Amino acid sequence: MTDPERRVRDSFAKQAFMTLLGANLLRVSPGEVDIELPFREDLAQQHGYLHAGVTTAIADSACGYAALSLMPADAAVLSVEFKVNMLTPAQGRRFLAMGRVVKSGRTITVVRGDVLAFDDQGETRPVLAMLGTMITASGRGIAD
Amino acid sequence: MTDPERRVRDSFAKQAFMTLLGANLLRVSPGEVDIELPFREDLAQQHGYLHAGVTTAIADSACGYAALSLMPADAAVLSVEFKVNMLTPAQGRRFLAMGRVVKSGRTITVVRGDVLAFDDQGETRPVLAMLGTMITASGRGIAD
Amino acid sequence: MTDPERRVRDSFAKQAFMTLLGANLLRVSPGEVDIELPFREDLAQQHGYLHAGVTTAIADSACGYAALSLMPADAAVLSVEFKVNMLTPAQGRRFLAMGRVVKSGRTITVVRGDVLAFDDQGETRPVLAMLGTMITASGRGIAD
Amino acid sequence: MTDPERRVRDSFAKQAFMTLLGANLLRVSPGEVDIELPFREDLAQQHGYLHAGVTTAIADSACGYAALSLMPADAAVLSVEFKVNMLTPAQGRRFLAMGRVVKSGRTITVVRGDVLAFDDQGETRPVLAMLGTMITASGRGIAD
Repeated sequence: MTDPERRVRDSFAKQAFMTLLGANLLRVSPGEVDIELPFREDLAQQHGYLHAGVTTAIADSACGYAALSLMPADAAVLSVEFKVNMLTPAQGRRFLAMGRVVKSGRTITVVRGDVLAFDDQGETRPVLAMLGTMITASGRGIAD
Repeated sequence: MTDPERRVRDSFAKQAFMTLLGANLLRVSPGEVDIELPFREDLAQQHGYLHAGVTTAIADSACGYAALSLMPADAAVLSVEFKVNMLTPAQGRRFLAMGRVVKSGRTITVVRGDVLAFDDQGETRPVLAMLGTMITASGRGIAD
Repeated sequence: MTDPERRVRDSFAKQAFMTLLGANLLRVSPGEVDIELPFREDLAQQHGYLHAGVTTAIADSACGYAALSLMPADAAVLSVEFKVNMLTPAQGRRFLAMGRVVKSGRTITVVRGDVLAFDDQGETRPVLAMLGTMITASGRGIAD
Repeated sequence: MTDPERRVRDSFAKQAFMTLLGANLLRVSPGEVDIELPFREDLAQQHGYLHAGVTTAIADSACGYAALSLMPADAAVLSVEFKVNMLTPAQGRRFLAMGRVVKSGRTITVVRGDVLAFDDQGETRPVLAMLGTMITASGRGIAD
């Protein structure tokens, strides 16, 4: 395991909210991170679909860690902002959030994220698209 | 309790994810909905702040229900998209998400949301700003 | 020329603002539209880069027409919202905006756009990424 | 005229694109900038409304200068990203873009913008809402 990968996996393990959701960190490559989430009924909104806050949360974590994987060792990552489009109602047995770095800069990293839904028949559908901005935080008393 | 208020409260009670988060529905007025969330450690990201997915989730629910409060009785509300800016790290003992309708149309409702953090000393800080789009869903087999 | 292509080209010709900018409509395929813009000094912001409003405008038009290319013949297209990230300062001799449909629905079409800058040496750099929402407008007294 | 106001007015005067549009800088206060634009037919999209790229451009400039008004004297302002919702078709004789600082930080400034349309009868309608991010650029060879 490379140092950037270990760093991302160590930080992810500290995201208590990902544990609460039951999310798992899958692939970690430079600028690319995948997070998986099995559906659970207590993650749903009123129509039984996965809550937009949940799909957004795993996309945000995947994008943040994709950005972190390219940051200097003494920096931490913070989300500045993101925008998401819900493409179809988030129905599925399992969800996959893919975070990718679009442009990596010294201070600002632009990221995009996609969340796919997998149903029982193995069919895949895109349910969310994200475009966001992460910042390299140094000297703020936080670490990753 | 007016019918729109009852409708919003009934639908919120069905959002299992809000229950998981420990979020409470406070004020429901036409075009205005407030949701409160006490801090819990299992809602945090790796630095101990509230996860951006959590602040976003309560802002999304507040905005969605603000939109629903003005929709026809036979319609349901779905989030089309939203954008959030994280204004400061989400530290606090309690959070308040305020969803407001900016422009209500037949199909599209534009909403804005703000999340405030309250600390032990009673100080208040804005931590998130949202600008989003909700849609009036009719004839899709879902209800609110 | 197919009917959707003719329709897009006819509508683009009516966008007086694209004429003012000196923008040209290049490729029109189902769900994909490219618009080209040569740099001009009167399109710049204070540092001499292309104004973000200009790169955004050609991305918006490319995305709107990508959406229109898939819409019913009696509908018009309107921009509901979009979000753009400026990836690098927009320096170049020529710019290319590529609008692509991500998800086409009956009412809502989700689009993404990318603007590339070309310099004198033929080098290419991405300068803008857009994620937006278009609506199929019917019965509003407008046509495309 | 205070120094920050003079600085904003001097920089605005260098935005060739604002001159092309016919935009005028009205109010400049700390964190608040207003820009006015009379309607012209060559700024329209295909239905005769002001092009979304134009309303966005004046909102971006208003927001960028609102941010600049609070920045250190040796810094320049750049747009990182923004998101806009078109609230109603941009019809009017005159438009007013109001840029406001939501949160001013050392590196990142969060801004919101609103564009109003005024018709011949003096009626006012909001046509655009913006939420965006500006950056304090230092040591990049640009000035404001």
